[in-house]
Amino acid sequence: MKGGNRPDSSYSVELDKIFNPKNIAIVGVSSAGFGFGSGILLSLLAIGYKGKIYAVNKNGGEFFGFKLYKSVQDIPSEIDFAIISVPAELVPASLEACRLKGAAGAEILSAGFRETGTAEGAKLEQEIKDISRKGIRVIGPNCFGIYCPKSGLTLLPGPDLSREEGPVAFLSQSGGMAIDLAHIGKWMGIRFSKVVSFGNGADLRETELLEYLQHDPDTQVICMYIEGVEDGRRFFETLKKVAATKPVIVYKGGLSVSGHRAVESHTASMGGNRIIWESALRQSNAIQVNDMYDMAHTALGFSLIPPGKYSGVAVTGGGGALGVLSCDLAERFGLMLPELENGISSKIMEALPKPGSSAKNPIDVANPMVHPSVLREALVGAAQDTRIDIQVLIQLLYHYKSMAMGLGKPLKEVVPYMELVDMIQEVRSGTGKPIVLVLPNLKRDNENMDVEEIIRETRSKAVERNIPVFDDIKDAFKTIAYVSRYYSNTKIYKDKEDETKGSV
Amino acid sequence: MKGGNRPDSSYSVELDKIFNPKNIAIVGVSSAGFGFGSGILLSLLAIGYKGKIYAVNKNGGEFFGFKLYKSVQDIPSEIDFAIISVPAELVPASLEACRLKGAAGAEILSAGFRETGTAEGAKLEQEIKDISRKGIRVIGPNCFGIYCPKSGLTLLPGPDLSREEGPVAFLSQSGGMAIDLAHIGKWMGIRFSKVVSFGNGADLRETELLEYLQHDPDTQVICMYIEGVEDGRRFFETLKKVAATKPVIVYKGGLSVSGHRAVESHTASMGGNRIIWESALRQSNAIQVNDMYDMAHTALGFSLIPPGKYSGVAVTGGGGALGVLSCDLAERFGLMLPELENGISSKIMEALPKPGSSAKNPIDVANPMVHPSVLREALVGAAQDTRIDIQVLIQLLYHYKSMAMGLGKPLKEVVPYMELVDMIQEVRSGTGKPIVLVLPNLKRDNENMDVEEIIRETRSKAVERNIPVFDDIKDAFKTIAYVSRYYSNTKIYKDKEDETKGSV
Repeated sequence: MKGGNRPDSSYSVELDKIFNPKNIAIVGVSSAGFGFGSGILLSLLAIGYKGKIYAVNKNGGEFFGFKLYKSVQDIPSEIDFAIISVPAELVPASLEACRLKGAAGAEILSAGFRETGTAEGAKLEQEIKDISRKGIRVIGPNCFGIYCPKSGLTLLPGPDLSREEGPVAFLSQSGGMAIDLAHIGKWMGIRFSKVVSFGNGADLRETELLEYLQHDPDTQVICMYIEGVEDGRRFFETLKKVAATKPVIVYKGGLSVSGHRAVESHTASMGGNRIIWESALRQSNAIQVNDMYDMAHTALGFSLIPPGKYSGVAVTGGGGALGVLSCDLAERFGLMLPELENGISSKIMEALPKPGSSAKNPIDVANPMVHPSVLREALVGAAQDTRIDIQVLIQLLYHYKSMAMGLGKPLKEVVPYMELVDMIQEVRSGTGKPIVLVLPNLKRDNENMDVEEIIRETRSKAVERNIPVFDDIKDAFKTIAYVSRYYSNTKIYKDKEDETKGSV
Repeated sequence: MKGGNRPDSSYSVELDKIFNPKNIAIVGVSSAGFGFGSGILLSLLAIGYKGKIYAVNKNGGEFFGFKLYKSVQDIPSEIDFAIISVPAELVPASLEACRLKGAAGAEILSAGFRETGTAEGAKLEQEIKDISRKGIRVIGPNCFGIYCPKSGLTLLPGPDLSREEGPVAFLSQSGGMAIDLAHIGKWMGIRFSKVVSFGNGADLRETELLEYLQHDPDTQVICMYIEGVEDGRRFFETLKKVAATKPVIVYKGGLSVSGHRAVESHTASMGGNRIIWESALRQSNAIQVNDMYDMAHTALGFSLIPPGKYSGVAVTGGGGALGVLSCDLAERFGLMLPELENGISSKIMEALPKPGSSAKNPIDVANPMVHPSVLREALVGAAQDTRIDIQVLIQLLYHYKSMAMGLGKPLKEVVPYMELVDMIQEVRSGTGKPIVLVLPNLKRDNENMDVEEIIRETRSKAVERNIPVFDDIKDAFKTIAYVSRYYSNTKIYKDKEDETKGSV
């Protein structure tokens, strides 16, 4: 509870220093073999950390051009931040040495503490807590550390994470989940301010970090993976406060009977009761998700879809069942596909190929290989209907494969993917209504790697223009529904909306 | 209702001839440009149809080495089956000509009938019905036809579908859904007996085809995509009868308000009421799914998981949150992860790397790059617990990427994927308990195409050994749950089980 007793400003300064260290000591860099210490050092170099790194190994020597200091004391300057990866029994002494060197904080990658269920592990963890109270903040133990592209910090197994910074923060009790979301984010287009894997959370953990993120100007969307909280009441009070200004997406693990057992051996947490958790999350206006991809999609949605209530959706795509499917799915997520006004519908029909097309909503362009210039007419038209709040465009790019084979050309020359993303960007800015792109791939056999490549290429171009892309229409609808529900329930946004209405 | 008045044996003979034609007339093969007729001809050649093809075009000439007969009458022999792709107004005359040539059936690819909502369209469709009653069975109009790998028939846009035959049939009112499932099946490992896209269903449609499949020895699992049925009572009676002997997976489109509207313009059907449909499907012991991938996963599950009740699941994988997640998800689908017996658990622990591993269930092997020989110990051990009915193995192959980069080797040389599938096959046959493999890919950026390739390669090797593979653990659990529920509710299976128990 020490965090709770400190004034905001004090621990903000400490955490700012931890997230933006001018130098780092890595304690436990083995000069031989493949250890956590050498691994994190190489990861920091790979991702381009620009500060000074001091590497420590009790035997001295050299690693990768780095002098290995025999002890933390030998480091010839003060340090901002430490990464500790020595055997559990040596951690307390290393942590204390880092504190004496002036480090604001340390991440402890080592495992072998409370999660082992042994008295020895619990004792070692208590020692960490005691040292931390004397004045050094701790991330971990049993964690993967911090990823912060802005300052060049990365997770233990994170040499190849994106270097681009963005609005999403992720607090994760699980290191595996932290690295998973960071990997998914890289290609999906989720850009991060800070990812913190805090493992056993001996010192810094969910509530205090959440409080920090509320005031972090680099963070606009917060994701959390929680196995258990230290102080439920304080956590939910904080969550409610934070969620009133920034969307907080919560994935709570261990709410099942057997999940309980798994969290104990994972991060030494208590799982909690499903009904209590779910109702408390709802009351806090947090967004509860139930798996990793759900969290990723939702984070992407909040990053790229502007705040707003989205009820009426226009869907454009080729292939009739896709239309039926769209309607059924939309309704499942509380969205509507209003039938377009007659005038608009007949105007769109003029542009569509025949027969087989339909422009009522969903707009069925009949053929999956309709050119972006035609799709443009559908999107511009549908946006004119005042009941349409957001548009979903489905493109089955794999159908171009037969065309490419027929023409004897590579797929990349046949699919008008640049025209597609340019068109979407232009229509979106022209109409002021968001557009979400869906790029399913049903041809995932070995002979169709080129289909995968063109879809990835299209996705990455779309992401550059801040167009959210989903594999599946279900994910698109679900995400839109989450975004819409959050803003519908958020006072800060409702007030703004009333203001706008008042001023009209 | 004509189908209903014919004795079983009669229409079986007709349908057998339609699914296995010795020769085919394609009516409407344009010698210039890219039409449906020329498209289906080329598709049949590509997939390797071995019978005789007669191509018809009113102007005569030649296409791709095929003489173009000016009329059906000019074809110098009787015909078994016809594929008609001429403008709607010319369809009735062509159909009548095929009937006179002795064709048992015809698929009509052309659109422009009842689905247009015009009087002219309805009149033309009625003419088709009238001709059909005189003695030729019709698939369509407004459809993609028949895919039957055994006889070499394929759908309109289906030159590259799998040539392997298998136990799954699919009856689809939507051509798009038919081709989509056939494509997904190709890489997922779903092998088909027959796929029928019947579009508007002027003659042959859901009920009669379903009845035929019940007695089709090549079909063990039936999928259906339905927008609307002609005679609800008869359909559900048939469904109940068929589902008592073969699993029937039903995806009902158009159960939402806007979905209703979409089915009208798609296949001229009436959507129906959600509550009535859902309860009738439940009462029939059909498996209701809510999207395409759900249907695909379920079809795969019924193809490759032996009939049985599956309640206790053992999960093996690396990464602790995966364990927590597994438990939570399993419970959501009514499955259990029983804690393994102490003796078994401690035996497995001997083989696992430390620290960080756990062998209670889920079995957390701590590191995603644990060799198949170690995974083997976990799987063999867990199978010894009598409460375990089925096993799920999760392999995060993308983690090998860093190792491959470190070693400077291609991923294919670093991932022990052949050892993995060999090991699974061996353990499955040794223990007699099914094993499902989950291969997520969280590294889907452009620089990691090799990760995608190795996952696809592993999947295809697994599929060759009849090991079902899923992208996601959620899909694996859901599928196991569907399979288990079906057999738990099926009398024929329950009787067998009682018999087995009695004989012990």
